[in-house]
Order: sequence, then C-alpha cells, then structure tokens
Amino acid sequence: MAWARPLSEAPDLAGRAVDLLRTPGALLNLAPDEAASVVAQMRLVHFGPGVTLFREGDGMLLDHMLLLLEGEVSIDMAATGHADSVAISVVGPGSVIGEMALLDGAPRSASCTTVSAVQAAGLSRKGLEALIDQQPRTAAKLLVGLGARTAERLRALGDQLQMYAALVEDQQRTIERLRGAGSGRL
Amino acid sequence: MAWARPLSEAPDLAGRAVDLLRTPGALLNLAPDEAASVVAQMRLVHFGPGVTLFREGDGMLLDHMLLLLEGEVSIDMAATGHADSVAISVVGPGSVIGEMALLDGAPRSASCTTVSAVQAAGLSRKGLEALIDQQPRTAAKLLVGLGARTAERLRALGDQLQMYAALVEDQQRTIERLRGAGSGRL
Repeated sequence: MAWARPLSEAPDLAGRAVDLLRTPGALLNLAPDEAASVVAQMRLVHFGPGVTLFREGDGMLLDHMLLLLEGEVSIDMAATGHADSVAISVVGPGSVIGEMALLDGAPRSASCTTVSAVQAAGLSRKGLEALIDQQPRTAAKLLVGLGARTAERLRALGDQLQMYAALVEDQQRTIERLRGAGSGRL
Repeated sequence: MAWARPLSEAPDLAGRAVDLLRTPGALLNLAPDEAASVVAQMRLVHFGPGVTLFREGDGMLLDHMLLLLEGEVSIDMAATGHADSVAISVVGPGSVIGEMALLDGAPRSASCTTVSAVQAAGLSRKGLEALIDQQPRTAAKLLVGLGARTAERLRALGDQLQMYAALVEDQQRTIERLRGAGSGRL
C-alpha cells in the first residue's frame, strides 16, 4: 500500500473522486464544493492486482476508508471454522470500502482483495477529523451518507440472517423426519 | 405516541438525557455543552407498556431516533415466513433505538415494543438537520458515534451470519449422512 501523495496532486483523479462522491448511488448528497472539501483530505493510493487491502479481523490500517477510482475489489467473508472464504461481492469505481473502520476503528469485518490494479482515494480518521474541524457541515453530510450506507448493509444482513434462520429450521425438520423414518425401519 | 413537548421543558429529564448521551457506552464522546445542543433538538415522548414503537417494515414514523430515559423496550425481529417473532434483546435507559431510520429514512429492520412505561428523548430527521445547521461540529460527532454503533451492530450480525452458515453446512452433512444410512438399509 502506497500512501503516495495527496489526491489533489493528481487533478484528473481528484475530479473523478468529486464526481464519484456525488453519484446518486453514493447517497452522499454533497454539493460540488463540499465534495471538493472531502477530496482535499484524501490521499491517492495505488495497488497491484491480487493485493489484500484489508484482512478480516486485521489490527492494522484500521482507520482508512477507500473510494475506488479505478479497478475492482473482491469482498470476502471467511466462514467460521473454514479455511475457505465466501465472496460477498466484487465492487468497482464509486464504491466505498472500509467506512466501518473509519467510523469506529475496530477490526474489519471482511477481507478485501484487489481483482485488478486499483487506484483509490483514501480518507483516514485524521483526514475525517480535519474535515470535521475545517468543514463541519460537509463532514456531517458525509457522515449521514456513510451512516445510511451502513444502515442499508445492516438491513441486507438482517434479511440474510432471517433466510438462514428459516433454512436452519427447515433442515432441522428434515433431520427429525429422517431420524424418525430411520428408527421406524429398525 | 405523544410528541408532547420539547425536552427542554422537562429540565430533570433533559439533564438525564445529557448524561446518558455522554456515557461511555453511548460512544458519542460529546462534551457537556455539545450534549446539551443535541438535547435542545429533542422532544420528550411517553409510551405506556405494551406499545409497539416501531414495526418491522413499517412505512410510518420513519425518521425518529429515540434515546431511552426510563423504562424498557423489547427489540424483536420477525423470522421469515413465521408469525412468531424472535426477541433480539431488551434495552433500557441510555439505549438508542431507531438510529438507522434517522440515518436513511428507510423502513425499520426490527420491531420495538415497550415492556414497561417508557420516557424517551426523540430526535427527528428535522431535528438532526437543525443540529447540522446550527452546531455542525456537534452533529458530526453525534454522527460518528451513531455510525460506530451501526458498524458495531453490523459486525455482530456478520458474526451471527457466519454461525448460521456453519450450522447450515453442519446440518447439510447430517442430512446427507442420514439419507446415506437410510438408503443403505433399504
């Protein structure tokens, strides 16, 4: 991971970051000058393909959020007690990863690995604090947007959990039926 | 639900709200005057026992967060395809509920029902916007705290999901074994 330089030193990518921060999917609702204030606190980072950006439970690099500018990243969640991990999704430009760690600095809940070469705009906890200090209103809007994203993911995960709970109950009935049938035959 | 009056008209409860907003568990890290700015935007609400505050998927009352001041609330999540709901937890004074709806205004992901009579401090989307307008730095701090809470819940739910995924796999193996044993006996 190369914290090469302030994003503002790469005007093309900084402009792209401003645009991406303002896309409807980003939910951030920022005016152009507000997006520019956020970008002013960001640093340009570059990764080759196959690089693990964040590892599940990793205690390092905890406080950075990345806005993907170019390339794709695979998000995986390791299944309990298994060496294999479960790919949750592949995300590309405009996607934000690591925002949970930015918000609470606790270990990451999923692993992220670059699929291709990636350029990203990184916002550190320090950058967020500088933004809160210098442009508190913009910081608040950014945080409402990030909070909404996290809330949305929480709901999606809640739905998944309900599906799993129903599946577990279903399987439990199948097991009881099979056991009943087995003992009946004895 | 009675949006009786501004919380500031009940100084004792307003003072309690300030204290509760500042407890370590609240993660909000607010100075006393900052907590007072938040409380200034809150309204005092009262509910009797057995009242459903928010219903899962409800399209109403979407944009209020409640800080519990007195009494307890049961949080339930309906299991898919079942009339029964699953009690997730019972929370009391100092707990915040409905903050996801405050952040993104989408339907609630769980149902909340009062266990006893409840006094709560309510912050609406409008109140949050007023806070962002008047005290943007305090709003940003509040939002960092709320975002951290949501992130924490997202992690807990992710852990639960992993447990369920492992259980499903385990049950699947049991079913295959039982089916194999059954056909062996035929």
